[in-house]
Amino acid sequence: MKKKKENKGPVLKVIPLGGLEQIGMNITAFEYEDSIIVVDCGLAFPDNDMLGVDLVIPDVSYLKDNIEKVKGFFITHGHEDHIGALPYVLKEVNVPVYATRLTMGIIEHKLEEHNMMKTTKRKVVQYGQHINSGLFRVEFIKTNHSIQDAAAFAIYTPVGTIVHTGDFKVDYTPVYGDAIDLQRFAEIGKKGVLALMCDSTNAERPGFTASEKTVGATIDQIFAEHNTTRIIIATFASNVDRVQQIINAAYKYGRKVVVEGRSMVNIINTASELGYLNIPERTLINIEELKNYPDEKTVIITTGSQGESMAALSRMANGMHRKVQITPKDTVVFSSHPIPGNEKAVGNVINELYMKGADVIFQDVHVSGHACAEEIKLIYSLVEPEYSLPVHGEYKHLKAQANIARSLGYDNEHIIIMHSGDILEFDADHNAKINGHVHTGAVMVDGLGVGDVGNIVLRDRQHLAEDGIIIVVMTLDSATGELLAGPDIVSRGFVYVRGAEDLMESAREVLEYTMGRLGEKNVTNWSQIKNEIKSGLSDFVWKETQRRPMILPIIMEV
Amino acid sequence: MKKKKENKGPVLKVIPLGGLEQIGMNITAFEYEDSIIVVDCGLAFPDNDMLGVDLVIPDVSYLKDNIEKVKGFFITHGHEDHIGALPYVLKEVNVPVYATRLTMGIIEHKLEEHNMMKTTKRKVVQYGQHINSGLFRVEFIKTNHSIQDAAAFAIYTPVGTIVHTGDFKVDYTPVYGDAIDLQRFAEIGKKGVLALMCDSTNAERPGFTASEKTVGATIDQIFAEHNTTRIIIATFASNVDRVQQIINAAYKYGRKVVVEGRSMVNIINTASELGYLNIPERTLINIEELKNYPDEKTVIITTGSQGESMAALSRMANGMHRKVQITPKDTVVFSSHPIPGNEKAVGNVINELYMKGADVIFQDVHVSGHACAEEIKLIYSLVEPEYSLPVHGEYKHLKAQANIARSLGYDNEHIIIMHSGDILEFDADHNAKINGHVHTGAVMVDGLGVGDVGNIVLRDRQHLAEDGIIIVVMTLDSATGELLAGPDIVSRGFVYVRGAEDLMESAREVLEYTMGRLGEKNVTNWSQIKNEIKSGLSDFVWKETQRRPMILPIIMEV
Repeated sequence: MKKKKENKGPVLKVIPLGGLEQIGMNITAFEYEDSIIVVDCGLAFPDNDMLGVDLVIPDVSYLKDNIEKVKGFFITHGHEDHIGALPYVLKEVNVPVYATRLTMGIIEHKLEEHNMMKTTKRKVVQYGQHINSGLFRVEFIKTNHSIQDAAAFAIYTPVGTIVHTGDFKVDYTPVYGDAIDLQRFAEIGKKGVLALMCDSTNAERPGFTASEKTVGATIDQIFAEHNTTRIIIATFASNVDRVQQIINAAYKYGRKVVVEGRSMVNIINTASELGYLNIPERTLINIEELKNYPDEKTVIITTGSQGESMAALSRMANGMHRKVQITPKDTVVFSSHPIPGNEKAVGNVINELYMKGADVIFQDVHVSGHACAEEIKLIYSLVEPEYSLPVHGEYKHLKAQANIARSLGYDNEHIIIMHSGDILEFDADHNAKINGHVHTGAVMVDGLGVGDVGNIVLRDRQHLAEDGIIIVVMTLDSATGELLAGPDIVSRGFVYVRGAEDLMESAREVLEYTMGRLGEKNVTNWSQIKNEIKSGLSDFVWKETQRRPMILPIIMEV
Repeated sequence: MKKKKENKGPVLKVIPLGGLEQIGMNITAFEYEDSIIVVDCGLAFPDNDMLGVDLVIPDVSYLKDNIEKVKGFFITHGHEDHIGALPYVLKEVNVPVYATRLTMGIIEHKLEEHNMMKTTKRKVVQYGQHINSGLFRVEFIKTNHSIQDAAAFAIYTPVGTIVHTGDFKVDYTPVYGDAIDLQRFAEIGKKGVLALMCDSTNAERPGFTASEKTVGATIDQIFAEHNTTRIIIATFASNVDRVQQIINAAYKYGRKVVVEGRSMVNIINTASELGYLNIPERTLINIEELKNYPDEKTVIITTGSQGESMAALSRMANGMHRKVQITPKDTVVFSSHPIPGNEKAVGNVINELYMKGADVIFQDVHVSGHACAEEIKLIYSLVEPEYSLPVHGEYKHLKAQANIARSLGYDNEHIIIMHSGDILEFDADHNAKINGHVHTGAVMVDGLGVGDVGNIVLRDRQHLAEDGIIIVVMTLDSATGELLAGPDIVSRGFVYVRGAEDLMESAREVLEYTMGRLGEKNVTNWSQIKNEIKSGLSDFVWKETQRRPMILPIIMEV
């Protein structure tokens, strides 16, 4: 960072509480004296090793510890990785939420599920509107993304202006509404911007992301060419523009539309109610009505484009869907790309669809919602920030944006790749330095439990998943320490017991030998008994099977 | 299939016992009267839901039931999905193994580990050699692949000739040895071929797979451009030609080479001993000697190109490797593509390497070992089979090859997509029909256990992994049924107990209530007691946490 003379006055702090080092869990605090505002409040989906965990939310201890300073949440758009943790975090940090109309509609759906509508202050904001919040002022700027009503923020602070792009792309020909407000980015840039926090998701990809409208043209062509089969299209529930284009094609080619999958139905309802989706009358039909129309006159828009095992498309593919059977008279279209990690699941669904005779189209019916390298350069050129703060992505994505900034002439002192928890300080002279860290982390949500599954529980689940459990129970006389019942062995997930009688019988002998030895030595100390049982049985099992099940001795006393 | 008059004489049966519907577990039986020969005997790696399973081998009940007919295993090449099940299957079906020299070297390494060298008859076969085996004759034909010494087979049967390509590509400029023997394919084709069983892996990809030598040029360029850092290259252990090209570049640019990772060391030893790898003297050094050379004078060739968590590169990336620390003076090259399903793991390793300051190159330093669409067309045009039998791949790959065959003029009667277990019969008049099925399946290997982990054990492991286990133990008086001790509750993987005292206390109360109610009713039937405990506790836990741990009541009697 710059080596200028340090300014001793108050500083602006930028503190990412999540969202770096991963896609998901986006949340960043901006602090100046007694004011904190927070941009986004997203969840992450659990890693493969987080067994049984439903979702992951950021640890907001820092906000709780400074709760009197926190003025509000400013939400860029309605995707889960930007809004999903709101219901959990608002329970602990109850401050107003600011968002555009559709984004707020989706948030409200969540708040209703958590019965929090009455207790949450909400304000719908228009593009161009400025919101005063403590010592900050936040302007909402129109952008494009794979969900409508996405916003970038200009955050006016006493130290300078920070532009946060949110998730964005540049779409000169969007399906709904206007193109990204490049003029406003330029105007703000002209006045001077301290730092740009720009979406890094696609920074590794050269060129420009294509317009959403190009997908409409592809969909139209698919409808034109497949006029003798039913069409089933899977896409992301929240991509309302994609759904609109499918509906447009259906209407043009005289097909009725069925919407299937809970999240798809929810978003379409919200978007229609708020006027973001234009469905011609008598186009939508109920799934029960499918049978009244010939195959070539229907379209099913469905969830499951990522091969999620419980989603509607997966259930159709594996024959578990109650209402839709896949036949050779189906054309199935994946209007999506697999998110990294989902490739195999998607491949399995495609195989199952092929086996049932369907035609499957799974390439080139999708465009990304994130800016590629040239769009990122465009934003830098309009905003001309002093500092580049790449955000939104794994480290390799942040690094790719840093390389772009470097190619635009930024030196290493003006490109700062932060880690979650870093406190980045800007003083009035625009010196920047990382000055300490706050506690951050991932809080696991499992069912109704928030944070009650931690590393110990996860490690046990991994152990149980790997080789199962062997439980050894026995009853001792509390007075004499004499063995009254057992030791009995019960196992789960270790071996198919009916095929392994010899092994279990030998294990029992090992136990009896251990207990006999302990008896001879008059050992009555429970923890010693438990340890001897564990180690004796564990050695035996390893020798016989080369597995390490969890071994759990339980002693009862009468 | 053809509707010609049925020929009542003996038939040729082609019976895939695995390898269709998936990549892996390749094994196909060919049967005529009293003779069965088997092509390949591979393993598969476990799916994500096969918790704790190490590897999967084919169920060869059909071979065991017809053991007096089985004449030998013919192995196309030395990859795990073609040889990995041999040690397990040979224990039950002990017949001679035929393979080319390097393939046999790799097989022998496995047999040694299983202490089976003395009991296994082995014959090394040259390209062009014909092996008589029962009523069959098998000719080994030179091909190219991502491992040396790969062979296709011409299987001469009383009914006609079947050509099985094995895994192959067409490489006009291979690194070691000759190009694929296209002339011989043509000669055999000219004489008439009943059916072609051709590799489908890359059938979805248009064009030609590039020559392995193109990767050598890329590697040379990387060495030329990165002359101030250490170079670490991860690739597939078995790709000896790739390793050769890295060694060539190291030698040219005056770098010493360290080989790291157990499987890499094994294969390189086998390949060097047999003369498939040419290492200039004083090029290889021990990992301990690294410190004696400047960074820019060393190369590390390592395993871990798929992000495997225990492989050498992953341990370097996460700082757990004892001998190699990653620094900004490292250039790390992935000479590989992620296999579907491994994308996220590979991405994580790249992120960790970047965070440690290394430069990472992970694109375009690899070519596939499998034929793309144009190569498949070439083989069809040389062999001109009557029937197309796509093999080696998931259903979508087989289907892609079927589409290629269709584009070459084959009709649906002459393209047969088989499923594992299908008995495909050819009569003397070359009529083909699928006539029945044999039992096939996947046998899971976990540690030393082969087949002792089945669906029940897996289901338990999945249940345990998802929400853990709650064990309820109690001791009853055998005479009166009176409760002498307990009920006690022990849980693992359910909840962090120290943070959930209230929950566990309430659970105990639920149990006591249940036991009290059972006592009032004088219930002494153990299975009734267990069922009541299970359902009472399960309802309580679901209401409180929305989780479904396994609940395991254990009753002891004194």
